[in-house]
Amino acid sequence: MRAGPGRVPGPCPSPSSERSGIVRDSGVFQRSASHFTDRITADGRDGWPVEAGRYRLVVSRACPWASRSLVVRRLLGLEEALSLAVADPVQDERSWRFTLDPDDRDPVLGIRFLSEAYEAREKGYDGGVSVPAVVDAATGRLVTNDYQRLTLDLSTEWGALHREGAPDLYPEALRDEIDERMEGIYRDVNNGVYQAGFAKSQEAYDAAYARLFARLDQVSEHLAGQRYLVGDTITEADVRLFTTLVRFDAVYHGHFKCNRNKLTEDRVLWAYARDLFQTPGFGDTVDFDHIKRHYYVVHEDINPTRVVPRGPDLRGWRTPHHRQELGGRPFGDGTPPPPPPSSEVVQPL
Amino acid sequence: MRAGPGRVPGPCPSPSSERSGIVRDSGVFQRSASHFTDRITADGRDGWPVEAGRYRLVVSRACPWASRSLVVRRLLGLEEALSLAVADPVQDERSWRFTLDPDDRDPVLGIRFLSEAYEAREKGYDGGVSVPAVVDAATGRLVTNDYQRLTLDLSTEWGALHREGAPDLYPEALRDEIDERMEGIYRDVNNGVYQAGFAKSQEAYDAAYARLFARLDQVSEHLAGQRYLVGDTITEADVRLFTTLVRFDAVYHGHFKCNRNKLTEDRVLWAYARDLFQTPGFGDTVDFDHIKRHYYVVHEDINPTRVVPRGPDLRGWRTPHHRQELGGRPFGDGTPPPPPPSSEVVQPL
Repeated sequence: MRAGPGRVPGPCPSPSSERSGIVRDSGVFQRSASHFTDRITADGRDGWPVEAGRYRLVVSRACPWASRSLVVRRLLGLEEALSLAVADPVQDERSWRFTLDPDDRDPVLGIRFLSEAYEAREKGYDGGVSVPAVVDAATGRLVTNDYQRLTLDLSTEWGALHREGAPDLYPEALRDEIDERMEGIYRDVNNGVYQAGFAKSQEAYDAAYARLFARLDQVSEHLAGQRYLVGDTITEADVRLFTTLVRFDAVYHGHFKCNRNKLTEDRVLWAYARDLFQTPGFGDTVDFDHIKRHYYVVHEDINPTRVVPRGPDLRGWRTPHHRQELGGRPFGDGTPPPPPPSSEVVQPL
Repeated sequence: MRAGPGRVPGPCPSPSSERSGIVRDSGVFQRSASHFTDRITADGRDGWPVEAGRYRLVVSRACPWASRSLVVRRLLGLEEALSLAVADPVQDERSWRFTLDPDDRDPVLGIRFLSEAYEAREKGYDGGVSVPAVVDAATGRLVTNDYQRLTLDLSTEWGALHREGAPDLYPEALRDEIDERMEGIYRDVNNGVYQAGFAKSQEAYDAAYARLFARLDQVSEHLAGQRYLVGDTITEADVRLFTTLVRFDAVYHGHFKCNRNKLTEDRVLWAYARDLFQTPGFGDTVDFDHIKRHYYVVHEDINPTRVVPRGPDLRGWRTPHHRQELGGRPFGDGTPPPPPPSSEVVQPL
């Protein structure tokens, strides 16, 4: 299944912003939908049954959309069942590449560029190449780059492979509320920061900025009285808010001009983000070096010097957050995940 | 007197960074000296005697170097003796222009561009055009653009025209200490932020960033125990540190990547800067709208979209600073200046 008429990719796409979405006449940046939207399901109805060891998850640790899948995979304990390829945070003109690996090749897929999996899926494919992407290891074919669906399917379709004590990140009884929260956060926050940063007109920027901080204020007020966004446990909604918040001061505040205040200046959101960061499965997926180098080096159109700022001081992420005083059961009836496999350990702060 | 061999201007120069200094092979931005260095003195030895109503000070309220003279002129009560022309914060390809005035002309000098005063001084002049500039009103000729000397001469040579109760901003007994403080602050802070922001290589940026924050840490420690930089009164050194600090969060933090922390995150420096901001003669010269539009619109080479960030929230500048608990006599044996003339009142925060 290949969705939509266009060929512009979903997140995180190829380097040039021209290929990452549409900038309309008004200067508004419009993110495009994913275009390979097959689903990997328990019943295999799209031809891709859930199967341990069959698929490879390709991410960049820089990309907030891909990072959702990194967090969810960790929380659910899918590291062995779904192996991981980490792309270089700096794409070249052929997009995501495996230059962090020996011989510049992904050791499992044997390819140098993620585009090769796209090409294997669709001969002559000339659209954008985005992460997260799931690739069928045996054939080397891309299965999906549908970042919106991917993490939900990891929760709901991959249950047979979850670790013991895995949390329920998308509980049925709360899905309406989770979906509603995520929709506003997607529009105004996850994608809102890009609309601010990639705006080509003052008006488009101003509008994105206003929506972003209005939403953050609303979320902050909501989180002042409860530990997590929905219910009293970590859900998919928290994962999606986290991957934007953790990048906020490091890149969005300056690079994307989301500068009413730093995350650290919002007492509630800063404590909430630190709480998640210090929860196994969240902070242990975050590579600030990858994050900063990706944004500042790749977006030459908004940072022509490609100089990467040395700030901000990130040591605050490890400081006490006191959010446990609000109660909440992070993993519900489950347990925290064990530390990541040694091959996936990220340089600590 | 025309100093130096080159023709590159001092601050704040013409729009393109190529003309504002030299970017060496290493990517280091090097600010050039001023080139019209005549002095206006009590004895008129350069042909320019101090005289009430004779000269016109041309500034941009955006420019930190020009803003020094705005503050000193206010503190010394020279508003009537030395009239003021305020240029549009956004230069065009002919540099500073009087587009804020009726008919786009300075009403006293009758010129549309500051470059006309440079040309009147030196026929065929094709160097940079910078503020602050002092112009002889009768002949329309530029007298000086030597920002380093200008404010000191206002203090030491213009004494006959000072208001009653004017402070001594450059007391003889403290000049060595003031000069030493100012030298380090100039190199690492006043000019350091530009070296970070205009660096064309990671190494040049990293070096400027390291020097900047090392110096700010040193200054912060110094100011933890005393209200002003030198002695117990406001001096020229405070004026020079202030004009950089007041721009820090609004432009240098993001635009120039000076982002280890915001000014508001340094308890001592933030209180020190607020103390000065709230002192008559400082904050009443500051136009954050001019500041932000100048940097973000003019520096297309580092902000190609020319979008001006809406942040940061600046309301904190008016909050209590408690620095009076450190003692100090802001104006020594003098008094604060009265409010600015109505024609010079800046839009309040």
